[in-house]
Amino acid sequence: MKKKALITGAAGFLGRYAAQECKQQGFYVVGIGHGDLGKDIASKDGIDEWISSDITLERLKSLSFLPDILIHCAGSGSVGFSVQNPLGDFARTVLSAYFALEYVRLYSPRTVFVYPSSAAVYGESQRMPICEDMPLNPISPYGVHKKMAEELCAMYARQYQVRCTVLRFFSVYGEALKKQLLWDACNKLADGNISFLGTGQEVRDWVHAEDAARAILLGALHASTECPVVNVGSGTGTSVRTVLERVFSSFGRKDAPCFTGAENTGNPAKYIADITRIRSWGWSPEIALDMGIDRYVHWCRSATGQVEY
Amino acid sequence: MKKKALITGAAGFLGRYAAQECKQQGFYVVGIGHGDLGKDIASKDGIDEWISSDITLERLKSLSFLPDILIHCAGSGSVGFSVQNPLGDFARTVLSAYFALEYVRLYSPRTVFVYPSSAAVYGESQRMPICEDMPLNPISPYGVHKKMAEELCAMYARQYQVRCTVLRFFSVYGEALKKQLLWDACNKLADGNISFLGTGQEVRDWVHAEDAARAILLGALHASTECPVVNVGSGTGTSVRTVLERVFSSFGRKDAPCFTGAENTGNPAKYIADITRIRSWGWSPEIALDMGIDRYVHWCRSATGQVEY
Repeated sequence: MKKKALITGAAGFLGRYAAQECKQQGFYVVGIGHGDLGKDIASKDGIDEWISSDITLERLKSLSFLPDILIHCAGSGSVGFSVQNPLGDFARTVLSAYFALEYVRLYSPRTVFVYPSSAAVYGESQRMPICEDMPLNPISPYGVHKKMAEELCAMYARQYQVRCTVLRFFSVYGEALKKQLLWDACNKLADGNISFLGTGQEVRDWVHAEDAARAILLGALHASTECPVVNVGSGTGTSVRTVLERVFSSFGRKDAPCFTGAENTGNPAKYIADITRIRSWGWSPEIALDMGIDRYVHWCRSATGQVEY
Repeated sequence: MKKKALITGAAGFLGRYAAQECKQQGFYVVGIGHGDLGKDIASKDGIDEWISSDITLERLKSLSFLPDILIHCAGSGSVGFSVQNPLGDFARTVLSAYFALEYVRLYSPRTVFVYPSSAAVYGESQRMPICEDMPLNPISPYGVHKKMAEELCAMYARQYQVRCTVLRFFSVYGEALKKQLLWDACNKLADGNISFLGTGQEVRDWVHAEDAARAILLGALHASTECPVVNVGSGTGTSVRTVLERVFSSFGRKDAPCFTGAENTGNPAKYIADITRIRSWGWSPEIALDMGIDRYVHWCRSATGQVEY
């Protein structure tokens, strides 16, 4: 019998990649979350069964099967939203994680729980690269809530022997991501706008969603009542300016991006992951940033109906 | 016009003492929470107005006044309950704190927020006495949730300029507390039972609820967007055996307590507060433990209809 993966938030960006990876690894994949995925779209994303629902304990306990792994991708994905509506962000991120963990404890204790967290839990860090044992000082409600969800995983592991893994994703990007830097850049360029917020000196550690999805499945293998925590990034920092220059060149443009110089509040200036720990599990990123950006630009231009130069 | 204090969980043990202290300091006192306090009882506790309700954002925003201070005493008070029902404990402690803070942010931003937390946030500490800057490693869901509620206070202070103070109470006791060591001891002694769980070597730092209530009001004066955190205890550790011996003597008994020797899981063996910080605010405990125990035993025997020896 096929192993079963339950993916919350499977209609979201990371959820879709996780579903595809599960499918490729031979799982029967059930997705649950917001969004009205048609059967065709769900199947294209590797989802065998789609449940359109809030993530609640009631809904989860009524499932007709016990998943082997539960990948909890549901949750808020926006620092800006979290600042405007902290309670809403809390409900999406912390409350949904609580329901998912409580479901495992009460109704499916053999399920392995994988939690995709975020580098936002670190906040402003003095030292780069950031390793997992550094102090957590999140500076946005989004980061505070991701940290709380992580602490719930650790608590369920310690107190109730739920096998968990927490993955702290740095800047995950890839085709289908309809927000953040690359999406904004492609849309601006299509409009002939080359002005960007910030200084361009902000440094991020980029990792393609396909690499991220492989890390998630590896995380499931390493889940334990110790609740291991691993960074997932490339281990290399790249400035926003460098990323945008690649987008420009991928668009065939000869000019360069301009920056407003204004600082982006709620986001630290620099994030680079120390990925020693996940490397020791045998994972390394396979999609180089340049290639990933080219793929993204190609996807974005077809998705938005732009003609290629 | 009188200043107004809103006390959530005002029918609870600490809430009642906080209400009395507010009343004595000249506040108009509104209590909200579970429990069906009659007008007489509420008034005896210093509560001018009692609202029987869950702590929800909807209920709070419909209040007909803006409080000068909000003392958030609502929340779970039992490690055992939190282990049995972590999600229920979370709702009582974390969710209620979120609603109260969101109420202040959105509807009453000049309100000072005081949060009575617990030494349970420290977990097993290697060094005694415990000062506020030591790492927090709570070992029960109760402690994890109190830590989350503290982090929400810090977040609302930093992000939304809500003026907050967090008080970490050690072992608060006093007349009207119908659970925990002193209550159990008095009831056992009334039945002639002198056997107690544990080793008797567990050390706690006891502080009378009247002293705790004074600390709460002082906390309101020190509230700021820095969200100060202070321990509230006596600064002295006393073993369970010593406390029980005083209870025995207060009962006029010549014998001594027996201990089962079993360890109490979920509770650290030793807790002593470093109270340097709150002492620097001009607070010190006024009710010595011996006197406090005598008062408690006297109250308990009248409350339970026992005849004094």
